[in-house]
Amino acid sequence: MVDRVPVWMMRQAGRYMPEYQALRRTASFWDVCSRPGLAARATLDAARFLDTDAAIIFSDITLPAWAMGQKLDFSPGPVLSPAVRTLADVAQLNEVESAKQMHFVMDAIRMTRRELAPEVSLIGFVGAPLTLAAYMIEGTPSRNWVELKRLAYAEPEVLAALIERTTQVVADHAAAQIQAGCDAVQLFDSVAGELAAEELAEFAFASAAKVVKAVAPLGAPIIYFARNIGAHLEQAAKVGADVLGLDWTVSIAQARRRLGDELGLMGNLDPAVLLTNAEEIDRRVRAILDEAQGHKSFIFNLGHGVLPATPPLHARQVVTSVRQWCEQKKP
Amino acid sequence: MVDRVPVWMMRQAGRYMPEYQALRRTASFWDVCSRPGLAARATLDAARFLDTDAAIIFSDITLPAWAMGQKLDFSPGPVLSPAVRTLADVAQLNEVESAKQMHFVMDAIRMTRRELAPEVSLIGFVGAPLTLAAYMIEGTPSRNWVELKRLAYAEPEVLAALIERTTQVVADHAAAQIQAGCDAVQLFDSVAGELAAEELAEFAFASAAKVVKAVAPLGAPIIYFARNIGAHLEQAAKVGADVLGLDWTVSIAQARRRLGDELGLMGNLDPAVLLTNAEEIDRRVRAILDEAQGHKSFIFNLGHGVLPATPPLHARQVVTSVRQWCEQKKP
Repeated sequence: MVDRVPVWMMRQAGRYMPEYQALRRTASFWDVCSRPGLAARATLDAARFLDTDAAIIFSDITLPAWAMGQKLDFSPGPVLSPAVRTLADVAQLNEVESAKQMHFVMDAIRMTRRELAPEVSLIGFVGAPLTLAAYMIEGTPSRNWVELKRLAYAEPEVLAALIERTTQVVADHAAAQIQAGCDAVQLFDSVAGELAAEELAEFAFASAAKVVKAVAPLGAPIIYFARNIGAHLEQAAKVGADVLGLDWTVSIAQARRRLGDELGLMGNLDPAVLLTNAEEIDRRVRAILDEAQGHKSFIFNLGHGVLPATPPLHARQVVTSVRQWCEQKKP
Repeated sequence: MVDRVPVWMMRQAGRYMPEYQALRRTASFWDVCSRPGLAARATLDAARFLDTDAAIIFSDITLPAWAMGQKLDFSPGPVLSPAVRTLADVAQLNEVESAKQMHFVMDAIRMTRRELAPEVSLIGFVGAPLTLAAYMIEGTPSRNWVELKRLAYAEPEVLAALIERTTQVVADHAAAQIQAGCDAVQLFDSVAGELAAEELAEFAFASAAKVVKAVAPLGAPIIYFARNIGAHLEQAAKVGADVLGLDWTVSIAQARRRLGDELGLMGNLDPAVLLTNAEEIDRRVRAILDEAQGHKSFIFNLGHGVLPATPPLHARQVVTSVRQWCEQKKP
């Protein structure tokens, strides 16, 4: 039992918000990522409008690939070129010191932290090593991730070499964000669930675990989020993060049964619920909180990012419903 | 232990095959679906080239929606219009007697059965009730299936009414295919895994179970295939099909541990493996067979359809590897 369940939403600063749309009328996506004032603005607007317990720094999974030397365009999704598909390609990637090459992210974190209410947490944003590697290999978000898998199956040494590099860069990028003022950091492993069980363990979970191990001494909680890994929650828990983020395909009740009471869990409202109406949102937020009740280590979130078609007041309803549930449950 | 593990591949008659490409140069996708000679040709070409133990009738998930009264175009994927989103829309749908409105499918089955080697099984093809409903609601394959979910969450009575109709039509369509000569039938529930646990049970598994119950008296084995349901295999097994088709995200070993030895299992090579090379394909086919060994009720298949970029000889290698493994294991 807790006084207050923390709530925030993945992609809470995004296209569904009029403030963000206004920002984008005069600035490209890359501008918002790379100009600290704009990234801080987007981050703060969302946290203030929604009144969430956390803000997550506005950024993109692919920025470290840019720092490693790939060209990065947004049209509108990320396009990385040239694709990294050989050991020679991997060897040509830059060493990265995030605090230098991606200083603008750290500047945005410092600016945001200064303006953000002290009781609101600031979360750092970083793709997990496998997911970052997947984007670097494919060049764009892919439907079947066939180039990633061709490497995983036929040239695992190339994928392993790339993931060794992304693991270093991701760990450094996460650490730099904590050092710049983030209270926690989230590893997004959105591609992991596309892999077969063996490759999921070898390429996704193992590298994420290395990042956790490298960053843990800094003392900031680490959240690991992957999608479509419902058959493998026990292995995902062994990544060692403080909190495991869940999508909506596994209930909080099932996750608790399988993982026990110690691990922090985060999730898992289907973002499509936000396209319905206030009553339905309220009902489904409460259902998740009822399931999670009694566990102090629960963070309310969506099971994936806010959808662009979401009415802003529906996103705020999620926060309102979480707060009201907590009020009513107070001893 | 069995003398021979049956093998076939989802979407084995498809764009990766030069024979199919040649067919499509003079005939639209709709032509191949609706002209029995062409559908039989595509079905037979694939089974003969690959030397599989089964052919699956060339068809499309959306045909029953067309029979129910939606306009169906392919551009290149299916486009159904107008979308079905209200009780009034549902009420306007036609009653369907598959053997009449979709007689061309039954004609194709009869033609194929006559020409197919007697020892090769012919499998009927039908979308599961939820998946068919999802296409009818969205109009096109969707990334987030938000209209489907809006109904599931905010107007479940509309979705339930539509699924009641698709359940009848799907059961009739499956039965008609068996009566026309199919030895088995596969229910494709490709959208099911997008749903949250509660909606998955209520809208996908429950309706698929009704189809199984309606069709089972005909005595032909029924295969139920869904993707991304690794957290819910036990519930999927309760659909009652003779065989559960698995994607590659759950290993055969894990599925056997969770489901026991009685249920038939089918799967589950990642189709992306077919983009590598003969040695790698052989190694991974054998690994799956080694896992499945000792269970007579196993059918080798991919975990989803053959990808368009697949070299035809790589698809045939799968069959060759299955046969060689079986030869070597013979007592």
